[in-house]
Amino acid sequence: MLCAPAGHGANRTPVSAMTNYDQYDSLRPIEWRGDHLRLLDQRLLPATVAWLDCRSVTEVADAIHALAVRGAPAIGIAGAYGMVLAAQASSDPADLVTAAQTLVQARPTAVNLAWAVQGLLASAQSEGHVDPAALLLRAQSIEREDLAANRHMGELGAAQITGGSGVLTHCNTGSLATAGFGTALGVIRAAWAQQRLSAVFATETRPWLQGARLTAWELQQDGIPATLIADSAGAHLMSTGRVQWLVVGADRIAANGDTANKIGTCQLAIAARHYGVKVMVVAPSSTVDLAMANGRDIEIELRDEAEITRLGGQPTAAPGVRAWNPVFDVTPAGLIDAIVTERGVVEQPAPGALAQLLSP
Amino acid sequence: MLCAPAGHGANRTPVSAMTNYDQYDSLRPIEWRGDHLRLLDQRLLPATVAWLDCRSVTEVADAIHALAVRGAPAIGIAGAYGMVLAAQASSDPADLVTAAQTLVQARPTAVNLAWAVQGLLASAQSEGHVDPAALLLRAQSIEREDLAANRHMGELGAAQITGGSGVLTHCNTGSLATAGFGTALGVIRAAWAQQRLSAVFATETRPWLQGARLTAWELQQDGIPATLIADSAGAHLMSTGRVQWLVVGADRIAANGDTANKIGTCQLAIAARHYGVKVMVVAPSSTVDLAMANGRDIEIELRDEAEITRLGGQPTAAPGVRAWNPVFDVTPAGLIDAIVTERGVVEQPAPGALAQLLSP
Repeated sequence: MLCAPAGHGANRTPVSAMTNYDQYDSLRPIEWRGDHLRLLDQRLLPATVAWLDCRSVTEVADAIHALAVRGAPAIGIAGAYGMVLAAQASSDPADLVTAAQTLVQARPTAVNLAWAVQGLLASAQSEGHVDPAALLLRAQSIEREDLAANRHMGELGAAQITGGSGVLTHCNTGSLATAGFGTALGVIRAAWAQQRLSAVFATETRPWLQGARLTAWELQQDGIPATLIADSAGAHLMSTGRVQWLVVGADRIAANGDTANKIGTCQLAIAARHYGVKVMVVAPSSTVDLAMANGRDIEIELRDEAEITRLGGQPTAAPGVRAWNPVFDVTPAGLIDAIVTERGVVEQPAPGALAQLLSP
Repeated sequence: MLCAPAGHGANRTPVSAMTNYDQYDSLRPIEWRGDHLRLLDQRLLPATVAWLDCRSVTEVADAIHALAVRGAPAIGIAGAYGMVLAAQASSDPADLVTAAQTLVQARPTAVNLAWAVQGLLASAQSEGHVDPAALLLRAQSIEREDLAANRHMGELGAAQITGGSGVLTHCNTGSLATAGFGTALGVIRAAWAQQRLSAVFATETRPWLQGARLTAWELQQDGIPATLIADSAGAHLMSTGRVQWLVVGADRIAANGDTANKIGTCQLAIAARHYGVKVMVVAPSSTVDLAMANGRDIEIELRDEAEITRLGGQPTAAPGVRAWNPVFDVTPAGLIDAIVTERGVVEQPAPGALAQLLSP
């Protein structure tokens, strides 16, 4: 009944810059097209592969809010191109400030969006004028650096994983959530390419089913077999001994290592600790918010109750039934074994360790 | 955004046989109709309230396997009436043995089904002939005793709960899962009637959404406000301090207290221990399998992958994506604070405690 292949694994392969990851990196969900931003509409996947053309800041912000594009790094990149669209539409610096506000408010928890958008705004402000071409170079650089960071994090994270391990991931942190390759899924791609993995499991990830719709599809595109489980089956899976690592992304990491990520991450991390399964958080350094001492102050986005009481447009609960829909939770640093960034790895994060890693 | 009412709670009310629970006990999903068994078809709830008339053992077994009727006590009762239908159809004792096998195989994990069906079979065998009227009396007695047991467990369990507590429940353990009132949900009904509860939360419970479809609907019918959460939001809810008890049912309890219940129970129980939330298991003594020393030997039912890769008839994952669908897990006794049966309560279950409670 267990459907993951027995294939890969067993022998520990050393990390090698010679491993070719290109065959595991076929998706690009964000395309700049000169005068508009083309986004792979992730709401329709996997049934339909359709693209959304955004020609204004509002259209980009709407796409971010409506989850046509999602994943912390991806919405940072989309936000950056949104600023380019704003600069193309108006040379008034005040309009650029308004555009930045509109974009940041589209999703409050992910720090990358604010980081990217405010970075472009600050650069325009320091230049003293709104230059679309300069902002475009900067947005393209963010996208390029994200992909390079993901490839590098993939190698760093894979090096943590002993050959023959099984991994469980939550939500979607792959090419669809980034410029390409992915964060947590990038580690899984790299570890798979290095033949370290015995099995890959993915939660379906309610309420939006990013695991069922996106992660399983992405891995299928790249020929990496994965097995879906219900979100609530994580602890039982761990109890069977078939996974040695829980590998997840992050939407915001506080200075002490407390990590905000998709709702359910903390629950899985607690179960992982219970069963001796290790927990790896994989995120670019732009996800680390050193200004936030710990996770207590991280704002948790609450979304529409209907995301819980309906599914695929159909009601699952009776009319009038209420729901509570926090879409992130905070995993305490004490439950995390490794935080992997493109700047390096922090094991057993202690206060100060991330600041030291990220110091210039 | 939190939708549970602030109403009830605060004052601790003593357990009282004077509390009137009738207003919280309006549903009867199983009706014996003389020559057939009428079942409330739970697959269609809450959108449609429709009844299914079963006129043969096969139809009852199919209804059990297809989850038209579900919940450990309820399928025990349905199975008992299935034996009556078999006795009405044939007076050959061999046919009754075949009928019992057909019924028990419909759901392997729940012990109540085997308990009820084999009880009727043994009674016919000791009588030396197949007497439909005698079997009917026995089936009706099982149903009547289940309802009485639930009312009594409700009081015993509610007495464990300090006034002003919030509770979280998983799956459906209410009138729909029993002869009426419910097991874990019976405790919640009784505690609500006694004004002990500040809030009731229910998980949606993938893959079948019994929480969203059934528990929320049942509580709504009885005027008990409940708030739905995603299965993966349990730990985050606990971290906010709004629930003091996780209250769940059971499909099989081993002699040492290890408890098989809906997939996700163990994951929530681990989170509960992490946050100091107490865990209560509520089940009739027929759920206790003293022949099984611990939970390691409990057979975990694996069901169709399509229950994970599809939802409401629609695919959620791409074609070809595989899934692993264990529908129960085993919560170790060490994570359970109280096991409530109609025979009494075992706190912090230790080996031998259940056997002692259930000794004649």
